[in-house]
Amino acid sequence: MDYPNNQDPGSPVRSGIPEHGRIPKYYAVKARIAELLDELGEGGLIPTERDLSERYDVARETVRQALRELVLEGRLRRQGRGTVVAGPKLAQPLSLASYTEGVRRQGRTPGRTLVSLDRFPCPSALAAETGLTCGEPVWHLERILLADDERVGLESTYVAVTRVPGFDTDFDPDSSFYAYLQSKGMAFGDADERLETVLATPREALLIGTPPALPMLLIHRVSRDTEGKPLERVRSLYRGDRFSFTTHLKG
Amino acid sequence: MDYPNNQDPGSPVRSGIPEHGRIPKYYAVKARIAELLDELGEGGLIPTERDLSERYDVARETVRQALRELVLEGRLRRQGRGTVVAGPKLAQPLSLASYTEGVRRQGRTPGRTLVSLDRFPCPSALAAETGLTCGEPVWHLERILLADDERVGLESTYVAVTRVPGFDTDFDPDSSFYAYLQSKGMAFGDADERLETVLATPREALLIGTPPALPMLLIHRVSRDTEGKPLERVRSLYRGDRFSFTTHLKG
Repeated sequence: MDYPNNQDPGSPVRSGIPEHGRIPKYYAVKARIAELLDELGEGGLIPTERDLSERYDVARETVRQALRELVLEGRLRRQGRGTVVAGPKLAQPLSLASYTEGVRRQGRTPGRTLVSLDRFPCPSALAAETGLTCGEPVWHLERILLADDERVGLESTYVAVTRVPGFDTDFDPDSSFYAYLQSKGMAFGDADERLETVLATPREALLIGTPPALPMLLIHRVSRDTEGKPLERVRSLYRGDRFSFTTHLKG
Repeated sequence: MDYPNNQDPGSPVRSGIPEHGRIPKYYAVKARIAELLDELGEGGLIPTERDLSERYDVARETVRQALRELVLEGRLRRQGRGTVVAGPKLAQPLSLASYTEGVRRQGRTPGRTLVSLDRFPCPSALAAETGLTCGEPVWHLERILLADDERVGLESTYVAVTRVPGFDTDFDPDSSFYAYLQSKGMAFGDADERLETVLATPREALLIGTPPALPMLLIHRVSRDTEGKPLERVRSLYRGDRFSFTTHLKG
């Protein structure tokens, strides 16, 4: 059967190939390598650039561009000196539940590595977004997010010092901040989130260990307690090649 | 004040500049151009590549890389032969409401351009995702999404022919599909959505008029009516430089 009869509804129509005009050579190679990945299956080692350029009779640079896109999209991942077929993206629910819970639900082990914990007067931009008072002391906690020991994201959390005065002494940075808040008697009421795609900055790429300028998913969150008072402002950056987000909508 | 005291909580920490190691030259230039954009304001025309390379005393290629990233991120947009400061991204709510409603709520005029309407037997992948019967006739509607006449996305909708038998004759492709379903007495009950970032394919880039390999936001949706019966499968692709998505979470 021809297009679109046998097509996966989640895939680009006509495999992304224009009806009219020229098919870019690298893209034709990319489409053929993508078929190869389906045959190899997760974890399968792909042939070298040289082998692929001979197989498809194209320049090494053409193969390189095709592989680069497949890596950015999370279809392939670098492993040691080789390149292997990547597993499916993690599907993290958009919910008030924590990163920890979301990752556990998918059978992966969550972890976090502390980058820094600072205390400073609430700047005007943060005050405007959260309803905190300009100048009141706030904590800024920055952590690398892990799934099965793989670095997958970077999270900045801003919270008022009056909420958690002993944060620098009684919080274990490798544990869930949400569980910590709950242990202090605080409960989440609601949150506003905004999700966008951005490119990793050099610092972020270094901390997460991604190629520079990898497309990332960035979630901005402002959450409040059950009385509607500001609780935290979070900026969570997730590797776009490793994460997707799910939501259930009701009428 | 030094980092992070005066920082916008939505921005990368330390402006994305690594604490240790080398700052890539193009990124230093990008950071300086980003400051310039704030001064110029939306719609402001930025200096030419040549002017910028003289101003910052770097190679044209360095300026070009900085500008390329600012375009991909939606901070700049090409307009005619020049490059201007882009407006903020549209913030579209994740909800059962239609694209039309979401765009209108932001004071923009929604529009759609028909790419194709096909009728074919339901393939196994679509049947597995939706609960439709393999082989039953389905419509596939593909449309370019517009906001104020600007092409911003591409949408594929799959719906059973038994649901809307006269779809090819009594549906205006430039109108809301959701309003059409409602006019036929169908109401949305719930939907599952999954959101990820992907690169535009050559066909998609051509249809939407974006640079090839622009990071896009892709939303997969499977929706059901109020009785839980499958209603539609949608694949919506939005320009990552023009869109963000919002959600309100409750405990």
